[in-house]
Amino acid sequence: MEREVIARCRSLAACTEEPGYITRTFLSEPMHAVHTILQAWMEQAGMSVWVDAAGNLRGRYAAREADAPCFYIGSHLDTVPHGGAFDGLLGVVMGIALLDLLAGRRLQFHVEVVGFSEEEGVRFGIPFIGSRAFIGDPVCDPRVDAAIRAFGLDPSRIGDARASDNVLGYLEFHIEQGPVLEERGLPVTVVQAIAGQSRSEVLFRGQSNHAGTTPMHLRRDALAGMAEWIGAVEREAGATPGLVATVGRIGVEPGATNVIPGTARASLDVRHAADSARKPAVERLLECGGQIAARRGLGFSCSWQLDQPAVAMDPGLSQMLECAIAAAGYPVHRMMSGAGHDAMIVARRMPAAMLFLRSPGGISHHPDEAVLEGDVTAALSVAIEFLEQLEAHLA
Amino acid sequence: MEREVIARCRSLAACTEEPGYITRTFLSEPMHAVHTILQAWMEQAGMSVWVDAAGNLRGRYAAREADAPCFYIGSHLDTVPHGGAFDGLLGVVMGIALLDLLAGRRLQFHVEVVGFSEEEGVRFGIPFIGSRAFIGDPVCDPRVDAAIRAFGLDPSRIGDARASDNVLGYLEFHIEQGPVLEERGLPVTVVQAIAGQSRSEVLFRGQSNHAGTTPMHLRRDALAGMAEWIGAVEREAGATPGLVATVGRIGVEPGATNVIPGTARASLDVRHAADSARKPAVERLLECGGQIAARRGLGFSCSWQLDQPAVAMDPGLSQMLECAIAAAGYPVHRMMSGAGHDAMIVARRMPAAMLFLRSPGGISHHPDEAVLEGDVTAALSVAIEFLEQLEAHLA
Repeated sequence: MEREVIARCRSLAACTEEPGYITRTFLSEPMHAVHTILQAWMEQAGMSVWVDAAGNLRGRYAAREADAPCFYIGSHLDTVPHGGAFDGLLGVVMGIALLDLLAGRRLQFHVEVVGFSEEEGVRFGIPFIGSRAFIGDPVCDPRVDAAIRAFGLDPSRIGDARASDNVLGYLEFHIEQGPVLEERGLPVTVVQAIAGQSRSEVLFRGQSNHAGTTPMHLRRDALAGMAEWIGAVEREAGATPGLVATVGRIGVEPGATNVIPGTARASLDVRHAADSARKPAVERLLECGGQIAARRGLGFSCSWQLDQPAVAMDPGLSQMLECAIAAAGYPVHRMMSGAGHDAMIVARRMPAAMLFLRSPGGISHHPDEAVLEGDVTAALSVAIEFLEQLEAHLA
Repeated sequence: MEREVIARCRSLAACTEEPGYITRTFLSEPMHAVHTILQAWMEQAGMSVWVDAAGNLRGRYAAREADAPCFYIGSHLDTVPHGGAFDGLLGVVMGIALLDLLAGRRLQFHVEVVGFSEEEGVRFGIPFIGSRAFIGDPVCDPRVDAAIRAFGLDPSRIGDARASDNVLGYLEFHIEQGPVLEERGLPVTVVQAIAGQSRSEVLFRGQSNHAGTTPMHLRRDALAGMAEWIGAVEREAGATPGLVATVGRIGVEPGATNVIPGTARASLDVRHAADSARKPAVERLLECGGQIAARRGLGFSCSWQLDQPAVAMDPGLSQMLECAIAAAGYPVHRMMSGAGHDAMIVARRMPAAMLFLRSPGGISHHPDEAVLEGDVTAALSVAIEFLEQLEAHLA
């Protein structure tokens, strides 16, 4: 089955806007083929299939009783430009495989596999179009509506995309997109929270001057101040467990070999599973920037671009997932997700949990993105145990 | 006279390729007007004037005897784009003013004022076109020849631009283009040497990765390494008297807020009056870059772009200049020039000396570039004393 899961993900890589690459944005033409193929696999697993007005593919594996509650398993079908075969899609294909493994046995709850139409935010710069409709908070944007119409769907019916109120929860399988599981030699992990995130642009302002004629003690070098601060960012993150802080962009003006930089601008990206750790860390970094600037006679300012709170996964479902991991015979591990996922949107409406699968080389958003066969085996065993526990829990 | 010197420089600012700015490149159209106006002032001071085949304006104030040796006073007539009124031109206008002050009195040596056609290297990316012809080492470039021809001159006669062999030396007045004299409250200084210069491009190579999913201890962040090294550059220069070291350009790839930089590139510019101080400093900086990279698991490389030795000014002429400063009643001070000047080319063929005038605010290559009236007074008094000493020395 694990081999089939990987083969299915790789075969769907052929559905792309750009031959030779995997590029599949919100309701783009190749999404029709993705739906057709997935629908066939879903029906084969005993599911009834429809596409909602947000373009989400919905496959329902009915419970023994019609008025039973529903448990959702989902992830997204879109990709970044030149992406990989597993980011998103794996979670949907895993959901179908799991129901295949039930071999027709019906449970006390419906299981619905959802392939969200959009998570990456590539086509319109708006992420989570699929999962936002699913939780009843659809994106209002005329471009989105036009794309829905062009795909052959009716945007006025987007309310129908809303998930059932009689719901047990949501589970998302996703590749880790980082190196942690590989470093620890683990196939899977429970995600305890999706990190909160602060993004800002930081500016040091000094005085540009001739690099040859200005002695060191008379300089107000904006880049020298910025470099000192980048060191402080790295130290702060290293000293705060679970914090990641990144300066990913930098630029100086005027930017000539023989001119002392008059201004230096850089981006700051800070993430942590707990807002109570992230926010004071960001404040210390800005205070430190101000101190460096004051000591060097520079100006310092910071403009905020994002302040997104952390989203905890549901403790009950997460604990059930840990028990399932242990029961399946794998080491139990928890970690935060540094990247955003549909689960963080879905968590606004229902209990949500995530299971990460190891990312070989930590690689994602890249054609080399992969998943190991043994890790898919592990995840499927964990998921079967999880469904059994859920079934037992309802008994 | 000092007021006249400043007024003359400011009036020639009208000769520009770009109305509203001072932009006057090698043998551009406005250079004709500059020659015409300077020629009139030179003739008024009792000089005979010609333009050599490199486009240098040459005004000779004849000695008492025809076969006397010659002393040269010069600087350049071109500017950077959007430059100031004094960089270069001041040295030529000062030379003429000095001969005006002689009021017709003839010396034991000819004094020739040279307005070099080109120093900044703007038009063809080739600096020192004027002074290189003057020392008999003309630039060979078909574009330069074409420009000479278009200006109405004959490039085949460029050998005639060569300075006399019967020569006493060369003196250049120039604005400091830096903040040192202003900080010390000095009107003028002797330049002891023109700094040697190393330029290179430095590269740290790490691994780009997701800023949210890669823990701090698993990163190979090229910018973090670069930032640490920029700090080391600043400390090395601060600890080495007379050394200036600048990182003026920086760039990272891929350069996105949420991606750890995989590569970081920057320029390094290191200058010192003594090559014996500059070269080991540069070696220490590169060694330090290698150590930082090794500790962080990064790659480090450096490509050389310039390694220009320091040029000492003539000790005899410089000492005579110091005596003249003292005799004129000003404090004696020596410093290096961090920028290049025609004097460093001329020094290859004859004893050369330089006198810097204070730059208010350290500003140059900018419309706000200025010179103080009192500093011109000082420089003229020093120059008169200098000529008297040279005259006495020959007696």
